[in-house]
Amino acid sequence: MDERIREHARTLVDWSARIEAGDDVVLSVAEGAHELAVAVAEELGVRDANLVTLYGSSEVDRAYTRAHSGEFDEDPEYERALYEHADAVLRLGGGRNTTEGADVPAEKRQAKGRARQGIREARMDTDWVSTVHPTRALAQQAGMSYAEYQEFVYDAVLRDWEELADEMATMKELLDEGSEVRIVKEDTDLTMSIEGRTAVNSAASVAYDSHNLPSGEVFTAPHATEGEVFFDVPMTINSQRVRNVHLTFEDGEVVDFAAEQNEDAIAEVLDTDEGARRLGELGIGMNRGIDRFTDSILFDEKMGDTVHLAVGRAYESNFPEGSEGEANDSAVHVDMITDMSEDSRMEIDGEVVQRNGTFRWEDGFEG
Amino acid sequence: MDERIREHARTLVDWSARIEAGDDVVLSVAEGAHELAVAVAEELGVRDANLVTLYGSSEVDRAYTRAHSGEFDEDPEYERALYEHADAVLRLGGGRNTTEGADVPAEKRQAKGRARQGIREARMDTDWVSTVHPTRALAQQAGMSYAEYQEFVYDAVLRDWEELADEMATMKELLDEGSEVRIVKEDTDLTMSIEGRTAVNSAASVAYDSHNLPSGEVFTAPHATEGEVFFDVPMTINSQRVRNVHLTFEDGEVVDFAAEQNEDAIAEVLDTDEGARRLGELGIGMNRGIDRFTDSILFDEKMGDTVHLAVGRAYESNFPEGSEGEANDSAVHVDMITDMSEDSRMEIDGEVVQRNGTFRWEDGFEG
Repeated sequence: MDERIREHARTLVDWSARIEAGDDVVLSVAEGAHELAVAVAEELGVRDANLVTLYGSSEVDRAYTRAHSGEFDEDPEYERALYEHADAVLRLGGGRNTTEGADVPAEKRQAKGRARQGIREARMDTDWVSTVHPTRALAQQAGMSYAEYQEFVYDAVLRDWEELADEMATMKELLDEGSEVRIVKEDTDLTMSIEGRTAVNSAASVAYDSHNLPSGEVFTAPHATEGEVFFDVPMTINSQRVRNVHLTFEDGEVVDFAAEQNEDAIAEVLDTDEGARRLGELGIGMNRGIDRFTDSILFDEKMGDTVHLAVGRAYESNFPEGSEGEANDSAVHVDMITDMSEDSRMEIDGEVVQRNGTFRWEDGFEG
Repeated sequence: MDERIREHARTLVDWSARIEAGDDVVLSVAEGAHELAVAVAEELGVRDANLVTLYGSSEVDRAYTRAHSGEFDEDPEYERALYEHADAVLRLGGGRNTTEGADVPAEKRQAKGRARQGIREARMDTDWVSTVHPTRALAQQAGMSYAEYQEFVYDAVLRDWEELADEMATMKELLDEGSEVRIVKEDTDLTMSIEGRTAVNSAASVAYDSHNLPSGEVFTAPHATEGEVFFDVPMTINSQRVRNVHLTFEDGEVVDFAAEQNEDAIAEVLDTDEGARRLGELGIGMNRGIDRFTDSILFDEKMGDTVHLAVGRAYESNFPEGSEGEANDSAVHVDMITDMSEDSRMEIDGEVVQRNGTFRWEDGFEG
């Protein structure tokens, strides 16, 4: 077995999920993630954890969901009980076809999602971590060769997380102490209040309230957004490719929008509900192991020298105890990314903290 | 998809497991059983059943079990809760290497089995059914080409089960009314009491208390066994090939034994505990869709014109209500098969019911 797969497994089990003896672990394995599953199972065995392995097959899921009438039972007790009694859920993505769900009617997928809210909440109450095993399908989605894509994934995943967490702590401190963030670049001049919010140092570990491997971003929940912003990183929303989105905010709400490709997809998102026109997240990508966009939000939004904003649902982890109810609520959370590596700056309370892809504490920073 | 796979899925879901709307179904998928899993998921969707899919990977299991210290937690609650709340468990066998467990230390495998007795019982309390998807590894084990092996499996599985159940009902009636079975062939003259026992018509359906697809046997729990028996069908016991076993019984117990190959494997079985020297099962194979031995007990013991005897644990389904405690108890249940197609006869209370592979109710029977 490729030694990088073993390292990936150790990182997931130790750094990310902090598995200990006796932990009840659910391991969910996508069709193409078999090898990583074997490595993870070995690490779980070494730690004397317990193991239940699920088959996260998109072909099984497609066949089942399409054939179903669409009247899904609410939170079947046997599945909810599994998660309610579990300590950790490790999800290994990595399918054999990233568009396997393309012919599942949207209304059935949505109905299934609604019916399973209790199960989802039970799963989110565990120490859950999502990661991906590099597959040929993901390489194709990224427009890369398989070998090149493997390198890409392991560069992103196999980092010195302790060191990155320390660096991100500096960013978190600036955000926690600040009250206003401003982003300036081409077609962009946006200000957001972050008063009364707590930033999350998303260091790819449940110990940091971070549930993705790789991660490497600091995020908070902005409000009172004003101005315009241009997202130059392409993305896929509900299976539609969207390019060059431009949003205009007044009083915290999107009042105007445009996109060069599939503008309708943006319209659909913004029309979902009231919260869909407000920001739920401001994230600052700081993982420089991710050096290119691969059309996968798990990687793209963590890329060093990018900033992403999400319209829709905010994370309660950004709200100090007692104020969680203030989080922006919505059925959607759609991330959009802008490149901050050139001709750009981010300010906190009027002070530049990042210019042209260099942070204030780094060599070569030009305030 | 091969239409036979769809028929297999329909037979499993309808005839065998009797799945209805709202049933909570656990589907366990071996590494090589993906295609059958997709077909079964579709059938479950059509019936609006609920679905949790487990990955029954022998490589994952091997890696985990080998790495574990061997001190397994007893019946982890999350897994037990899954089965306790489930209505049915469908296990799709069909690995990619039938000897994947070869380097898992026996003591760890046994310790794991002992620690999971409550989980096993919870699973057996559901409407569970085991079947196999034909894989290249199973074809190899059977000494057959892949295409030939697929034919073999579907011939065994895709039967007119209603018709076979009717024929087996005749055999069950003879056994239920009779009190002594005698088997006579080369090196074999064995009598067993079946007084006070109820035969099971194992027609591959939970409606018949039968949990294997394919099935096609009628079995009971004999006692007071006397005489000698020769098993001419090769078998594998604890990964060891065993040939031509000869057992001698007195007062219901094995008092002498011999085998032409790996006699030690038989000795080990018989020495397990007190119940291991007594019979737990007499089974009469009646599935003529199975026309050859393939070194897989799921198929071999159901083959038409064979009889199998198991030393060890008896099934409670053979004991009328209130007398279940009388069932022979043992940690083992090892089946051994003898060919009844030539120069042989089976008698019930002195009357011949099968001679040279022909039953009393069939054309060509020579009483």
